[in-house]
Amino acid sequence: MPDKRPIDVLDKSKGKRILVRLKNGNRINGVLEALDMHLNLWLSNAELTDEEGVKRIGDVLIRGDTVVFASPEENVSK
Amino acid sequence: MPDKRPIDVLDKSKGKRILVRLKNGNRINGVLEALDMHLNLWLSNAELTDEEGVKRIGDVLIRGDTVVFASPEENVSK
Amino acid sequence: MPDKRPIDVLDKSKGKRILVRLKNGNRINGVLEALDMHLNLWLSNAELTDEEGVKRIGDVLIRGDTVVFASPEENVSK
Amino acid sequence: MPDKRPIDVLDKSKGKRILVRLKNGNRINGVLEALDMHLNLWLSNAELTDEEGVKRIGDVLIRGDTVVFASPEENVSK
Amino acid sequence: MPDKRPIDVLDKSKGKRILVRLKNGNRINGVLEALDMHLNLWLSNAELTDEEGVKRIGDVLIRGDTVVFASPEENVSK
Amino acid sequence: MPDKRPIDVLDKSKGKRILVRLKNGNRINGVLEALDMHLNLWLSNAELTDEEGVKRIGDVLIRGDTVVFASPEENVSK
Amino acid sequence: MPDKRPIDVLDKSKGKRILVRLKNGNRINGVLEALDMHLNLWLSNAELTDEEGVKRIGDVLIRGDTVVFASPEENVSK
Repeated sequence: MPDKRPIDVLDKSKGKRILVRLKNGNRINGVLEALDMHLNLWLSNAELTDEEGVKRIGDVLIRGDTVVFASPEENVSK
Repeated sequence: MPDKRPIDVLDKSKGKRILVRLKNGNRINGVLEALDMHLNLWLSNAELTDEEGVKRIGDVLIRGDTVVFASPEENVSK
Repeated sequence: MPDKRPIDVLDKSKGKRILVRLKNGNRINGVLEALDMHLNLWLSNAELTDEEGVKRIGDVLIRGDTVVFASPEENVSK
Repeated sequence: MPDKRPIDVLDKSKGKRILVRLKNGNRINGVLEALDMHLNLWLSNAELTDEEGVKRIGDVLIRGDTVVFASPEENVSK
Repeated sequence: MPDKRPIDVLDKSKGKRILVRLKNGNRINGVLEALDMHLNLWLSNAELTDEEGVKRIGDVLIRGDTVVFASPEENVSK
Repeated sequence: MPDKRPIDVLDKSKGKRILVRLKNGNRINGVLEALDMHLNLWLSNAELTDEEGVKRIGDVLIRGDTVVFASPEENVSK
Repeated sequence: MPDKRPIDVLDKSKGKRILVRLKNGNRINGVLEALDMHLNLWLSNAELTDEEGVKRIGDVLIRGDTVVFASPEENVSK
């Protein structure tokens, strides 16, 4: 059995909501549709939280190099 | 059937308007004419929103490494 | 016997709590589940400390290029 | 017929004026003489707009990784 | 005899204390256990100096790309 | 005849003075002795303009990734 | 005879003092012991000038990607 890889924690979240924190301070949550090894992310039904508040943005492609961390939503305390 | 890739969310938006958020805080929306795997983007009929307001810039090439995220416009709440 | 590599200090911490300091000033501690040579990290039972305080985030994938340093928790003074 | 590439929007501007926005906030406009895939740009008859105002700088080589976006001048609103 | 390489100055400090200055302004000193060509560093018995003061952090893995410079401690003036 | 490359604008300036603007806001002018494809530059008879004023620095090696743009001096307006 | 390379200006300074300006604003001068193509530098008898003043740091390894420019000391005006 191969070693676990860090990205496996997101692979198992496909079709579920994840939370993403970006380097510019923005936060995006949405349903994980696709990801790659650079951590480029495609989220659907996404919501953006920035300095202006919360906004629905639907589908979004997040560039991997702008990601700080990403978490499956289910275990995050409110 | 191969796995979906993150960039597929933009591929299906060719010929339609997308919204792009840049690392310097600028925002550009325009019709997606071409994109590559670095997320270099060619938009037509583009509008730039920066600290000076909104300006029409026509065709524009956005360097991929300056992109934070990009969304098809249709689902973005106003 | 091969030379020790820097990453060995974390390899021996799998299944134990580590502390991670990020470039944006955030701090995350959690149980190390997986890591790779880029220092991408999968932590479980993680806690995030940011400008808003402490928050439980459960599983988290930290992008390696945002890591400043990481320490096994056992020897860190409180 | 191959797909359009993002850089094609500038290729067709050789010999014409383009506007370039840089990551440090500087703006340069000039006649596009040459470009490469890194977006390194050689402009002639260039003008620099920085915090000191507008200055003629003649020929200039702009390092690609400092470019945010570039537009053919003809469609940019004044 | 091959040319000296910059990293040789640290190779000869294995098992001795070194001082490391990081890009975020943090300073870490500790015993050098391992290093690689990216300047990833494993220090033991490490002390962190940040905006909160001095803290013992035991073993630590420092990501190479966050290092500004590193010095063997013996010659550093107090 | 091959296409012109962006770096050609500097190649023809060897032995002549060029002006270089750096990402940290410093400005250096000097005689171009050598350059490479990363835009690493060797200038002789160089002058540095920084927040402290103007200083003669003689020969200098400028790291390419710190360059914003570079211009042959002859056409720059004073 | 091959073309001169930018790094040649430092190669001829081995065993002599050079001045190095870093991206974080620090300045280090010392005797150049070794350098590589990334501009990683080993200086001996080095002095660091930072926001706290001047400090002797003896041997030091400077990570190349933090260098803005480097000059042989002999021609620098005081």
